[in-house]
Amino acid sequence: MGAYETVVKVRFGDIDHAGIVFYPRISEYFHVTFEEFFADRVRLPYHELFDIRRLGLPTVRTEIDYRESLRFGDVARVEFGVLGLGRCSVTTRYRIRKKPAGPVCVDARVTVVCVDMETFRPVPVPDDLREVFLAHRVEDRDE
Amino acid sequence: MGAYETVVKVRFGDIDHAGIVFYPRISEYFHVTFEEFFADRVRLPYHELFDIRRLGLPTVRTEIDYRESLRFGDVARVEFGVLGLGRCSVTTRYRIRKKPAGPVCVDARVTVVCVDMETFRPVPVPDDLREVFLAHRVEDRDE
Amino acid sequence: MGAYETVVKVRFGDIDHAGIVFYPRISEYFHVTFEEFFADRVRLPYHELFDIRRLGLPTVRTEIDYRESLRFGDVARVEFGVLGLGRCSVTTRYRIRKKPAGPVCVDARVTVVCVDMETFRPVPVPDDLREVFLAHRVEDRDE
Amino acid sequence: MGAYETVVKVRFGDIDHAGIVFYPRISEYFHVTFEEFFADRVRLPYHELFDIRRLGLPTVRTEIDYRESLRFGDVARVEFGVLGLGRCSVTTRYRIRKKPAGPVCVDARVTVVCVDMETFRPVPVPDDLREVFLAHRVEDRDE
Repeated sequence: MGAYETVVKVRFGDIDHAGIVFYPRISEYFHVTFEEFFADRVRLPYHELFDIRRLGLPTVRTEIDYRESLRFGDVARVEFGVLGLGRCSVTTRYRIRKKPAGPVCVDARVTVVCVDMETFRPVPVPDDLREVFLAHRVEDRDE
Repeated sequence: MGAYETVVKVRFGDIDHAGIVFYPRISEYFHVTFEEFFADRVRLPYHELFDIRRLGLPTVRTEIDYRESLRFGDVARVEFGVLGLGRCSVTTRYRIRKKPAGPVCVDARVTVVCVDMETFRPVPVPDDLREVFLAHRVEDRDE
Repeated sequence: MGAYETVVKVRFGDIDHAGIVFYPRISEYFHVTFEEFFADRVRLPYHELFDIRRLGLPTVRTEIDYRESLRFGDVARVEFGVLGLGRCSVTTRYRIRKKPAGPVCVDARVTVVCVDMETFRPVPVPDDLREVFLAHRVEDRDE
Repeated sequence: MGAYETVVKVRFGDIDHAGIVFYPRISEYFHVTFEEFFADRVRLPYHELFDIRRLGLPTVRTEIDYRESLRFGDVARVEFGVLGLGRCSVTTRYRIRKKPAGPVCVDARVTVVCVDMETFRPVPVPDDLREVFLAHRVEDRDE
C-alpha cells in the first residue's frame, strides 16, 4: 500500500516572529497525520487506543531535517510511512511537501514505543496495529 | 493583601502572522499566573490539587478586553485578583501591563468552577482555598 | 445566508492536565473557522488580506461561555455568524456543538477591528468584506 | 565557560492526552532557553537580532532522544551548549534533567543557520555571536 497522505493547512497562529511556521509546530503536523492515519487506516480512533485499549505510543526519538520553511497560506501534504517495526517500537517517516506539488520541505524519522498506559512500560505492538503498520512500509531512500 | 503579580515574557513562538501575540496565548499567560499563584500563595502546587486532592478548576466564562497588542520583546506584568467568590465558583480578574510600567493592555474576568475530578460535577470551594482567594480580593473598578 | 459552519477535530495535543481541551485552544478553533470562512465565503485567502491588502483584523474583545468540556475524540462543529457591523469593527458569534448534534458547548462573541497593517490603526471595513459579513448576519438569541 | 542553564516549568497546558508533556512542547522549552541565553550571555535581546540587526537563526535540523517523560509539576533544568560552529551554522545541544537533579530525560542536537531576514539566505555568523557561542562549547559525549 505504501505511504499514507493527509493535508494540513498552515494556520495563522502557527507562525513565529520570523514569519515562518514555528518549528515545533511541524511536529504537531506529524501528530495530526498520525491521528488521521489511525482513523483512516487502522480504523481505530486514536483516543480509543488510550481510553479503551489502554495503550500509548509515546515518541522516543525524532530526527528532522527542515529544508524549506512553510509560511501562512501554504498547505502541507504530509506523507507518512513505516521504515521499521520492532517488537515494541515503530520507526516512521514523515515528509512534507507544499501543495499542489514540489520538493520535500521537511523530512523526518520518528520512533514511537508501544506502552501500557498503566505502567508506561513497553509492551509488544499488538498484531492488528502491526499488520497495518507493515502495510504502510516505505523504503528509506533520499528524495 | 490585594492583587498577586507575576511576570511572563512574550516568547518567539507566541507571535502570529500579524506580528503580535496570538490572542489565545494571552489566556495561557493567565493560566501560568494562576499556577504561580497556587505555588506562591495557596502554597499548594497546582498539580497536587488535581493529582492528590482530585479537584479541578475549569474555566466556565471569560470576558477579555484586548486594548493594546503585545509584541516579541515585551515582558508582561500579569496582575491577578479575586472579584467574587460563590459557593462552587470564583470570579477572578487578570490585568496585563507591559514592564516596567504603563496602561492596562489586557483586562479580563475569568470565572472558574471547582469540580470533583471523578465526576466533573461542581463541589464547594474548599475552605483553605476560599481563605486564600478572599485574601486576594480586588475591587471591580476600571483603570 | 446566515451562519457559516466548519468542523474542527479535537487533537491529542489540545488536551490539558485535566483531560479536557485546554480552554485557550477553543479560541484557536474560532480562528481556524475564521480562516476557513475567508477562504470559502469571502473568497480571499486570509493571508492575502495581510500580505497583499495590508489589512489586519485583530481581536479586541471576547466573551466566551464554556458550558460543556470537549474531550479527545470529539469533533467540534463550529458555527460562525455576524452579530453587528460597525464602521471599523465586526462583532461575531461562534458556537460549538459536538458532532453529530447536540447542545451548544461553547458560546462566544468576538469583536475584531479592521486595521491598517502599517500603522495598526483602525480603518473602515472594506466594502467587499462588509458585504460578505452582512450576508452572514445572525440573530442574537440564546439557545 | 561551558554550558548555560535555565529552568522551565512544565505548564498545565503542555500536557497531552497521555498525561505527559506533548513532545513538540519540548522543542518550545529549547527555544525559551535559547532566548534566555541571548538575553543573559549574548546580552542581545533575541528580538533585536530580528528587528534591528535583521538576522534570523532558523532551525534546519533536530535530533532528539526522549528518554524519560516530563509531567505536570516537573521543573525542567535545560542545559544549552555549542557542539560545533560552521561559517553560517551552529550545532547546539540541549539536555533536560528534572529539578533538583537526576538523569538526562531529553538529549538533543539542534542545528540553526544564520540568515539575512530580507532574503532568508545564509550569511556568516557575526563575530560577536561567534565569540559567545565559542565560549559555550561543550564536548559531545554521552551521559
